[in-house]
Amino acid sequence: MHVLFACPHNDPADWLPLLASELPDCRISVWDPQGPPSGADVALVWKPPAALFAHEPNLKALFNLGAGVDALLAMPELPPHIQIVRLEDAGMAVQMAEYALYALLRASRNFGRYEADQAAARWAPLPGLRRAQWPVGVLGLGEMGARVAQSIAAFDYPVAGWSRSPRSIDGVQCFAGQDKLSGFLRRTRVLVNVLPLTPETNGILNRETLSQLMPGAHLINVGRGPHLNEDDLLALLEEGRIEGATLDVFGVEPLPPSHPFWTHPRVHITPHIAASTLREEAVAQIAAKVRRLARGEPISGVVTPQRGY
Amino acid sequence: MHVLFACPHNDPADWLPLLASELPDCRISVWDPQGPPSGADVALVWKPPAALFAHEPNLKALFNLGAGVDALLAMPELPPHIQIVRLEDAGMAVQMAEYALYALLRASRNFGRYEADQAAARWAPLPGLRRAQWPVGVLGLGEMGARVAQSIAAFDYPVAGWSRSPRSIDGVQCFAGQDKLSGFLRRTRVLVNVLPLTPETNGILNRETLSQLMPGAHLINVGRGPHLNEDDLLALLEEGRIEGATLDVFGVEPLPPSHPFWTHPRVHITPHIAASTLREEAVAQIAAKVRRLARGEPISGVVTPQRGY
Repeated sequence: MHVLFACPHNDPADWLPLLASELPDCRISVWDPQGPPSGADVALVWKPPAALFAHEPNLKALFNLGAGVDALLAMPELPPHIQIVRLEDAGMAVQMAEYALYALLRASRNFGRYEADQAAARWAPLPGLRRAQWPVGVLGLGEMGARVAQSIAAFDYPVAGWSRSPRSIDGVQCFAGQDKLSGFLRRTRVLVNVLPLTPETNGILNRETLSQLMPGAHLINVGRGPHLNEDDLLALLEEGRIEGATLDVFGVEPLPPSHPFWTHPRVHITPHIAASTLREEAVAQIAAKVRRLARGEPISGVVTPQRGY
Repeated sequence: MHVLFACPHNDPADWLPLLASELPDCRISVWDPQGPPSGADVALVWKPPAALFAHEPNLKALFNLGAGVDALLAMPELPPHIQIVRLEDAGMAVQMAEYALYALLRASRNFGRYEADQAAARWAPLPGLRRAQWPVGVLGLGEMGARVAQSIAAFDYPVAGWSRSPRSIDGVQCFAGQDKLSGFLRRTRVLVNVLPLTPETNGILNRETLSQLMPGAHLINVGRGPHLNEDDLLALLEEGRIEGATLDVFGVEPLPPSHPFWTHPRVHITPHIAASTLREEAVAQIAAKVRRLARGEPISGVVTPQRGY
């Protein structure tokens, strides 16, 4: 197998030694758009330029260095015969879970309020939390969503999850399909979005869905920016239909300096850091799949383009 | 059985209906320091006045509405024959675990930094976390400590715990006894204290112990104020030996307005709210023990005064 590293935003020096040590029997090279085609069979990609595909016609599979393949699938230059393989977990699910839990606790345990109290030198204990008043709902129950839901359930919050196709997760009330979305939203106060971005989920966080949440609702978006209609959220915050939001992803990134999220007192933003690819885990997972492909064995994580993930 | 409610800081109207419904066969009354002795056999207590014991000589057991019995044991008026029963978990362990996790994530995941970045309208993603660089150590491995340690281990941090007597907890490296304390501290970056306050643990968080922690250390104190030498902590923060602290308990509470913790940029304080007694859980647990006592059966959670918990 000949493996091509085609990630113009990542330093090959960080990745090639790891790849070489995991795949001693493979030829490994770095994509050179100025040079001749490498003839590589598979490529590791992250935000690749469109020119890659015409320049490297021998590629049969792309290993995306992330879980979300929406940007890749949206490229018109992508040849339909190429298999796309997404990163499965690779240390990202636990990061998503801790991000969601942090944002939840900030609201449910009043940590934001206590921070303001410290700044005002005010000693003001609030009544303890009643977990029954904080039902959490997780949109998306793949590797990420399942871990998020189970991690929060372990802290005794009532947790439900919604997914396109039926799932079963211990300790989590599972809803599936479009006609169960409304019931899921109505029992949810803190909504965590970890859906993949597909034509069906684009804009799923909008006035119609968000206004079905329980009073005092909080939104935590760690999916993709286009899942959320940002204007709808701002209006719902204004109307008091949503109490707060913690957002890691945005329609435009970096978030433009003039965007109202920067200064909104009830919106917390982070710069798309909820889950970052861990190099060692990612390389180990991809290398194992390359070895299986070399032996002609099936691999998991292959994207179904029609489904979008 | 005759059960006395002797908690001058709590409203009996919140508690008596619950007690009556859990203990329909018991007589239940509220302590009246002006009236005649009630003759009650057992009492629910929370910060009781010293006069209680001389006024109610028939009491054979006290159910403390909290896990820490240090204040009760320190009362010279407490007759030595009275059994003291502490609250076991009753919804407090999960609260301790979420407090500790929140404080840990704020440091390990840079959430404090991202908050400052939002205030400065700065989009500046930081490199992802390497969990191996954040070993967590939990001082105290009773009901509280075990749950704290396991909850943090579930997020893939390296977790160890230290206790007076040997324990064994899945996924947690357990140290026991005075001569193992140093080894425990040296492998710990984030130290979470959930010890009971006893003569042996008073002042255990001091210059000698805290300066053995790894570089970039954080202290999370959810035990008792007197565990910590506050001047030592301030000096170690100044010297850069400790990076930050999250404190819920203090030598004097409420924390005096002039105390330097209020304004220290690397000290986060909360007003003794890490774990509050949940009424329903507490009453259910105490009622079950009262029923066992009435049948002459042994109960758990009885304090050994010499040990202090």
